[in-house]
Amino acid sequence: MTQSRIHIARQLATPHGFDLASPLQIGGNYASVTEHDKTVHVSGQVPRIGSNVVCTGRVGELVTLFQARTATEVCVLRVLAILEQAYGLERIKRVLKMNVFVQAAADFTQQSEVADAASDLLVAVFGEDGRHARTSVGVHQLPKNASVELDLIAALF
Amino acid sequence: MTQSRIHIARQLATPHGFDLASPLQIGGNYASVTEHDKTVHVSGQVPRIGSNVVCTGRVGELVTLFQARTATEVCVLRVLAILEQAYGLERIKRVLKMNVFVQAAADFTQQSEVADAASDLLVAVFGEDGRHARTSVGVHQLPKNASVELDLIAALF
Amino acid sequence: MTQSRIHIARQLATPHGFDLASPLQIGGNYASVTEHDKTVHVSGQVPRIGSNVVCTGRVGELVTLFQARTATEVCVLRVLAILEQAYGLERIKRVLKMNVFVQAAADFTQQSEVADAASDLLVAVFGEDGRHARTSVGVHQLPKNASVELDLIAALF
Repeated sequence: MTQSRIHIARQLATPHGFDLASPLQIGGNYASVTEHDKTVHVSGQVPRIGSNVVCTGRVGELVTLFQARTATEVCVLRVLAILEQAYGLERIKRVLKMNVFVQAAADFTQQSEVADAASDLLVAVFGEDGRHARTSVGVHQLPKNASVELDLIAALF
Repeated sequence: MTQSRIHIARQLATPHGFDLASPLQIGGNYASVTEHDKTVHVSGQVPRIGSNVVCTGRVGELVTLFQARTATEVCVLRVLAILEQAYGLERIKRVLKMNVFVQAAADFTQQSEVADAASDLLVAVFGEDGRHARTSVGVHQLPKNASVELDLIAALF
Repeated sequence: MTQSRIHIARQLATPHGFDLASPLQIGGNYASVTEHDKTVHVSGQVPRIGSNVVCTGRVGELVTLFQARTATEVCVLRVLAILEQAYGLERIKRVLKMNVFVQAAADFTQQSEVADAASDLLVAVFGEDGRHARTSVGVHQLPKNASVELDLIAALF
């Protein structure tokens, strides 16, 4: 029997100590997600669990590729929590686009390898419907000194 | 009596000396805004008034958080001018997504606080319909040495 | 007689030695392009021809503005190859948005002039339907040390 998406997501969240049912706080006059005509835009997520950003610093300096990939999974889990709480993961028809921003050292060029951790998690949860267009870049700084930030566009049934 | 959106926007533009009715120039083979199926994409705006970029340099070095927030308001006013001139602000159904790029010092991590100035202005003009998904990042450089740049996606009625 | 879009694109691709019919490889769990409701998102493209990234390094240091513009044309040609292979260029109704990321020196502020090369090529192929909203920023690093990366949203007929 096929497992439900939320069941798979919960299993992938467990090693991170991340609870997909926890309410996510917004610190300003914006929204976690907006919807128009069955297209949803999810706000940029840093690897925060509760009130802690769990991975800070530049990838390639203090932060290893492995740590950055783990942090990227937390970002995606936050996106999944937002989508589950707003619509339920079963209502996602397709993940359309993901943008990944890596706060990295001046000579770090493995942004794609960081982003792959996010792509793999999305495909693990949604199957082929999780296969998305993607852009990965290395940026100079991120809010709260986070090592990675990502946002996402998806289509609803 | 409720004030119209353009009336509120004009009041917020006055202290900046920004005229929402001024034509905005485009320097290349692109457009200020495109529309498809009632979704509009607005091009990235730097804090330009007339032909002057009014805030240049890195936030956290020569530019303070306060100055960056003021500059961010000018960027949003440019977005509002584009939307007003193309469609009229009353036709905006919802602001869907805003991306904020801050040209900042290597140790500056208050990108969210810069972006809050933009979010606050959007909600002042559009109310709850102005509440948007948002991504804020710190970038290495911006065109014309601008301290901030932002773009936006919105839905039309 | 008006030339077809793919004919124009092939002529523009020739000096780069780029073949619009070559299959483009994807290195991870993502897609070159996704479609929903006649809106397509194309993944970020670096200036790769075959398996070689043809322009690496920072613009304003080792890479000149001219070289960066040439590289940007290769990025756009890759986008055109993806659209042609997935839908055919004649099905593109409008280019809606392009995001251009330039890996540049700390004092390089001509991101717009780099992006203009992409905008010009799009308008050469699609005419007024190629006129798009645009955001150009300078980023700290790009995957594979590429000098430029761009992605695109378009509408289909």
